[in-house]
Amino acid sequence: MTQEPASPRVTVRRGAHHANYDRHAMLHILRAGHVAHVGVNTPDGPLVLPMAYGITDETMYLHGALANSLLKAGAGTEVCATVTLLDGLVFAKTPFNHSMNYRCVVVRGAARAVTDEAERLDALRIISDHVVANWDTARPPNASELRATRVIALPLAEMSAKTGEGMPTNDEIDADAPYWTGVVPLVAQWGEPVTAPDSGAPIPAPIAGLAGTRISPSQG
Amino acid sequence: MTQEPASPRVTVRRGAHHANYDRHAMLHILRAGHVAHVGVNTPDGPLVLPMAYGITDETMYLHGALANSLLKAGAGTEVCATVTLLDGLVFAKTPFNHSMNYRCVVVRGAARAVTDEAERLDALRIISDHVVANWDTARPPNASELRATRVIALPLAEMSAKTGEGMPTNDEIDADAPYWTGVVPLVAQWGEPVTAPDSGAPIPAPIAGLAGTRISPSQG
Repeated sequence: MTQEPASPRVTVRRGAHHANYDRHAMLHILRAGHVAHVGVNTPDGPLVLPMAYGITDETMYLHGALANSLLKAGAGTEVCATVTLLDGLVFAKTPFNHSMNYRCVVVRGAARAVTDEAERLDALRIISDHVVANWDTARPPNASELRATRVIALPLAEMSAKTGEGMPTNDEIDADAPYWTGVVPLVAQWGEPVTAPDSGAPIPAPIAGLAGTRISPSQG
Repeated sequence: MTQEPASPRVTVRRGAHHANYDRHAMLHILRAGHVAHVGVNTPDGPLVLPMAYGITDETMYLHGALANSLLKAGAGTEVCATVTLLDGLVFAKTPFNHSMNYRCVVVRGAARAVTDEAERLDALRIISDHVVANWDTARPPNASELRATRVIALPLAEMSAKTGEGMPTNDEIDADAPYWTGVVPLVAQWGEPVTAPDSGAPIPAPIAGLAGTRISPSQG
């Protein structure tokens, strides 16, 4: 396990003391996140869209409709997938030193279209089960749904984490400045499941178990 | 006020019925968000980083250290800034119809370096006050802090919103399928402020007032 960045393009330049290249820590953040902001370059300029995702220890999977222009643009070319969890607002004695508490992982690399049928099905299950296991309590995709779905894979090879936590850092010149400093935590958790009118079964235990689960770390 | 997209590159192609080009609705989402995922193209491929931001009715402002490579790359060139609020997980009878409830705005355009001193100071105040007013209860930036800060402006001209809310849509073939369907809301709110040991004043009223404020809409 290395604490060195995998490449210069994922080396954190600003606020390097907030960087984390520990693979276990980076995977932990990716497992905690829900949405990746995926960027590709297009003839019209950069495009960034939020996407559901899933990961193994080596790969991030993204999926969408066959016609999804970002996935079409991303397959076989360079993409950047960024997962951020906001944990709080950090107020210093001057706005220059304000910040946020957060956990962020940036993954860069060439994405690959997933064409092997077995890997495609695995990938869809991994994405579906990312936040909570539900694949086994739903109807499996049929052939036409599989044909209508595009899946791409991004290697978890070049990535870096950047995190902020705790209290603000103030400059010496502000030691006696008469201003409030502190943190306002963001408290996020899954709520009680709401059953749809057309539901055909009781709530599966894993989904029911989400209620009250904290997404943000405990703070303060 | 138009309901038409400003340009083809911000026209929502997939799930067009989830698109919203109403300017008031788009600004409303941008005011509710906290973090923009900003994408630029670099010689190393696309790069997407989370950034604090602030807006007027016409402009999104982003700031960072003078050496911030994304802001350096973004000034004078095309960027994409995407703001997403996740509101819940949507479970259908088959993973193909699963989705998320969310509010998202995508802004595309050429960013401009903000060099005018008065606009720079205004921009920093707008960014600082974006989530909660605090500029007037902190020390104003001094000359060296201002010199160390880069500010760029992105016109809120080409943008689109995409939102999902409510219950899953199931296919007719699944009408009698014996699976649970419904929504698990994400419940996010600001917590109680935690005062830092070096604080020099009581909590300002606007910051104290954040506690208990819901970020996610009420659901269910």
